[in-house]
Amino acid sequence: MAVEIKELTSRSENYAQWYNDLVLKADLAENSAVRGCMVIKPYGYAIWEKIQRQLDDMFKETGHVNAYFPLFIPKSFLSREAAHVEGFAKECAVVTHYRLKNDPNGKGVVVDPEARLEEELIVRPTSETIIWNTYKSWIQSYRDLPILVNQWANVVRWEMRTRLFLRTAEFLWQEGHTAHATQAEAIAETRKMLDVYAEFAEQYMAVPVLKGAKTASERFAGAVDTFCIEALMQDGKALQAGTSHFLGQNFAKAFDVQFLDREGKRDYVWSTSWGVSTRLMGALIMAHSDDNGLVLPPKLAPYQVVIVPIYKNDEQFAAINEQLLKVIKDLKNLHITVKYDDSQNKKPGWKFAEYELKGVPVRLAMGGRDLENNTIEAARRDTLTKETVGLENIASYVKNLLDEIQENIYRKALDFRAAQTFTVDTYDEFKEKIEAGGFILAHWDGAPETEELIKNETKATIRCIPFDGDKTPGKCMVTGKPSAQRVVFARSY
Amino acid sequence: MAVEIKELTSRSENYAQWYNDLVLKADLAENSAVRGCMVIKPYGYAIWEKIQRQLDDMFKETGHVNAYFPLFIPKSFLSREAAHVEGFAKECAVVTHYRLKNDPNGKGVVVDPEARLEEELIVRPTSETIIWNTYKSWIQSYRDLPILVNQWANVVRWEMRTRLFLRTAEFLWQEGHTAHATQAEAIAETRKMLDVYAEFAEQYMAVPVLKGAKTASERFAGAVDTFCIEALMQDGKALQAGTSHFLGQNFAKAFDVQFLDREGKRDYVWSTSWGVSTRLMGALIMAHSDDNGLVLPPKLAPYQVVIVPIYKNDEQFAAINEQLLKVIKDLKNLHITVKYDDSQNKKPGWKFAEYELKGVPVRLAMGGRDLENNTIEAARRDTLTKETVGLENIASYVKNLLDEIQENIYRKALDFRAAQTFTVDTYDEFKEKIEAGGFILAHWDGAPETEELIKNETKATIRCIPFDGDKTPGKCMVTGKPSAQRVVFARSY
Repeated sequence: MAVEIKELTSRSENYAQWYNDLVLKADLAENSAVRGCMVIKPYGYAIWEKIQRQLDDMFKETGHVNAYFPLFIPKSFLSREAAHVEGFAKECAVVTHYRLKNDPNGKGVVVDPEARLEEELIVRPTSETIIWNTYKSWIQSYRDLPILVNQWANVVRWEMRTRLFLRTAEFLWQEGHTAHATQAEAIAETRKMLDVYAEFAEQYMAVPVLKGAKTASERFAGAVDTFCIEALMQDGKALQAGTSHFLGQNFAKAFDVQFLDREGKRDYVWSTSWGVSTRLMGALIMAHSDDNGLVLPPKLAPYQVVIVPIYKNDEQFAAINEQLLKVIKDLKNLHITVKYDDSQNKKPGWKFAEYELKGVPVRLAMGGRDLENNTIEAARRDTLTKETVGLENIASYVKNLLDEIQENIYRKALDFRAAQTFTVDTYDEFKEKIEAGGFILAHWDGAPETEELIKNETKATIRCIPFDGDKTPGKCMVTGKPSAQRVVFARSY
Repeated sequence: MAVEIKELTSRSENYAQWYNDLVLKADLAENSAVRGCMVIKPYGYAIWEKIQRQLDDMFKETGHVNAYFPLFIPKSFLSREAAHVEGFAKECAVVTHYRLKNDPNGKGVVVDPEARLEEELIVRPTSETIIWNTYKSWIQSYRDLPILVNQWANVVRWEMRTRLFLRTAEFLWQEGHTAHATQAEAIAETRKMLDVYAEFAEQYMAVPVLKGAKTASERFAGAVDTFCIEALMQDGKALQAGTSHFLGQNFAKAFDVQFLDREGKRDYVWSTSWGVSTRLMGALIMAHSDDNGLVLPPKLAPYQVVIVPIYKNDEQFAAINEQLLKVIKDLKNLHITVKYDDSQNKKPGWKFAEYELKGVPVRLAMGGRDLENNTIEAARRDTLTKETVGLENIASYVKNLLDEIQENIYRKALDFRAAQTFTVDTYDEFKEKIEAGGFILAHWDGAPETEELIKNETKATIRCIPFDGDKTPGKCMVTGKPSAQRVVFARSY
C-alpha cells in the first residue's frame, strides 16, 4: 500500500534542520507573520497544557497561589534596579501610542500622533519590577509574609535570532515571585523551587538534569544568585531548562519595600523569582525524539495510546470495532488517554507513520487474524518494537507498558548523558573534547576573565557549578590557579 | 470581643462604590501603576481559575482544542476587514520600537530611535486577523475543516474609563475561532457556543441569562450576526456576559482563505468567533453579593467550606482539633474543598467577618459546647442563617447544603430578574420604567435611527432580540411602525 511519508531530515545529517522539520511536521508550532513570534498549534499546545497542569499542581502543593499582573511596565520602573535594566533594555518591545486613525493620505490606518503616551510602556520581558511595585502596598509587617505567588503569562524579549520554542520574541512561561522575612527563608525557597523543576524534568519529561549555580556572568539581571537545571540534548549541546533566582533585597530596595519584623525593626524584604517557559518544549523534543519523529514520555503525551482498526470490509470492521470499543473502555477506566482513529479516508499505513511522527507512546492495532485469535498488536514508540498480546488483560498490559516506556526513555537519556560527560584536566584536552559535545567537568579558577577567554576560544560556557558530585579542589585547567571544585562546561542552546 | 470589620459602602447608598469596595476588600483585584490595567489578586484569580477550568472542560467536550497565536498583530492586518478596523483602531496599544538605550542626557533609559519597527505592531484587541492570516496556510480542502480552536489569552483595548473586572485596558479571556465548510455549520457552531456560555452562566455562576441576537449597531466589528447572553445585576443594569459571532465569510475574504469543497469547487471558508472574559468576575460579584460582602456559588468558590475552631485553652483546642480533622477528612472524601483556619493570631469573630466578606458558602465552627454535645455549627453565607447539627453525617449534610446554596442563589437571581422584567407598550411608560432599572420588553421598528433616539433620550440600549419568549408582532412604541417581536431594553454596563 502506498504510504505518504512526511520525511524528516536525519539527526546525523543536520540536527538543527531535523529539529525544525520535526516541530513543523509533527504540528507542534510554526512561525507567524510577526517576526520571531510563533503560533503554537493544537498538538503542541496540548503538550504544553500537560506541562502546565502538572507544574501548577506542584506549585500549589508547595504552598503557592496564582495571580495576574499587568502586561505593561512603565519605562521608569525598569531603571530602578541597575543590573536589571542593563540586562533587559536592549530587547524591549515599547508601546508609545494608544490609538490609530485613518491614513489621511490614503487607505489603511496610521498611528495617531496625538495619542502619544506620556511615559512609554514596556511589554514585560519579566515581571519583577511591576510586581515589586505592587508588593509595596501588600507588605507592612512580618505577618504579611511570606508571599508565595506564581503567574502564568506571556512575555516578550526582542531576540534577533529566533528558533521555534527555543528562542522566540514572545513566549509563554510561569514566573514565581516570592517575598520573605529572612534571607535564609528566601534561599531555601530558591532551592526548593529548583528541586521542583528538577523533579518535574526527570519524573515527567524524563529528562535528567544537573542542578547547580550559575557563575556571576551568567546570572539573571538583578539576582544575587541564580540556580539552574541543565539538560543535555542529543547533539551534545546543553539546554538551560529552568532557573530559580535568589534576589536578595535588590528589588525590595529598588521599590522601597520594607516590613516590621517580630522585634519591631524595619528591614527590606528578601525575595526570589523562578521560571520555566515554552522552551521546555524544545528540551522535550530534542532529548528523546528520533529520525522517525517525536518520542513523547507517556506522562506528557496528549494521548498515550492510539488505536487503529485494520479491516477488509464493513462486516469485519463492525466485529473489530466491537472489540476495540471494549478495549477503549478498559483503558479509560485506568485513566489512560486514548485516540481511536477509525477514520475511513486514511490507510492504516498512513496512520502508523503519522502517530509515529507525533510520538504517541503506544499503538494498538487489530486486524482480521487478531480478531480470530482474540489478540491485538501493541507497538512501542520508544523502541519501535511490537508484540502480539492477548485481549484479556490488555488494559493492565498497556498500563505497565506506559510505565516501562516512561522509565526507559529516562534511562536512555541518563545513559546518553553519562556517556557524554567527560572529566578533563588540561585545556588542550578540553578544546579537543568540546568539539564532540557533551558535558565537560573541569577545574576553573573562578575568574570571569578565564571564563570569558574559554568562551571566546571554544564557544563553551560554564553551565553550572554543580550542587552534587565530586567536590575535590584542584587547579584551573587554563591558569593553574586554585579551583574549589570542578564546574560543568558545554556549548549550549 | 472586639472585631475589626472592613466596612463596605451599602448597595443602597452607592452601588458603584459598594462594588469597588467589595473588589478591593475581598482581595479580588486592585488597580496597578499602569493606567487601566488591574492586578488580579490570588483570591480573585482562584475564582477565575475555577471559571477557566470549567469552561475549558466544556469547550473540549464540544470538540474544541486550544492553541496559541501571537500577542502582536501587524498594523496592516487590521485594515483588511473594513468594519473590524473601524471598531478597534481607536483603542489600540501600538508597539513602535524594539529597544531602549541609556539616556545620553542623564539617568534612566529612553527609546532608541534607531530601533523603530518598519511596521508598527498592535497589541491584540482580539485575534481574528492574525488567526485568519494563519488559517490561510492550514486550510486547502474540506478535509481540513472544521477547525475548532480556542485560545486563552490576554488582550488590550485602550478604554478611557475603566472599572475593575468590568472594563479594563488589559483583560484575560478566551477566544474561540472556528472555520467551517458551510454557512449552516458555522451558524450552528455560533449557537452551540452561546448555549455553552448560557449553561455555564446558569449552572456554575448561578446567573440566569437571556439569549438573543444583537441589533446591527451593537454587533461585533466584522460580524454578520452577534449572539449574546445578558444578565441583570442587582442595580437593575444589564451586563453582557458573553458573545458568539457568526462572521460569515468576512475574514476568509479579507485574508483570502479559500477551500476546495467535496465537489471540487473553490469557496471562501465560513467562520465564527466567541469569547468570555474576566468581565464574568464582575457579573459574578454583582449578581449575588450583599452588604456583608461576596456571595459565591459553591461550584466556583475557591474553598467551599471554612472551618473555625473556638476554644479557651490548648487542651480544649486539642480535643476540638481532633474532631475537626476527622470532619475535614470526610469532607475531602466527598471532594469538598475546605479551608481550616486554626490560626492563633486572629479571633473567631474576625475570622467569621473575613470569610463572610470573602463569600465562603459554608462556615463550620466548633466550640466547647459542640464538643460536649457531639455537634457543630453550620452557617450559610447566602441566607446568613445557622444551624447546630450532629457530627455523624456532617459531610453529607454539607454536601447537600452546598447543592442547596447553589440552587438558592440561582433561584434568588431568577426571582429578582422576574420581578425586574417589565412589558411596556408606550414610550412614556418606557421612559418612566427605565429610571428604576430592569429589563424592559418593548416593540421596536427595527430601525437604527429609532434605537439611537431611544439611547440618546433614555441611555437604554437594546440588549438583545431574545430567542425565547413571546414572539407576537406589534407596533414600535416610538414610531408606531410594525415590529416583529418585543426586544429587551436596559441600561447596561
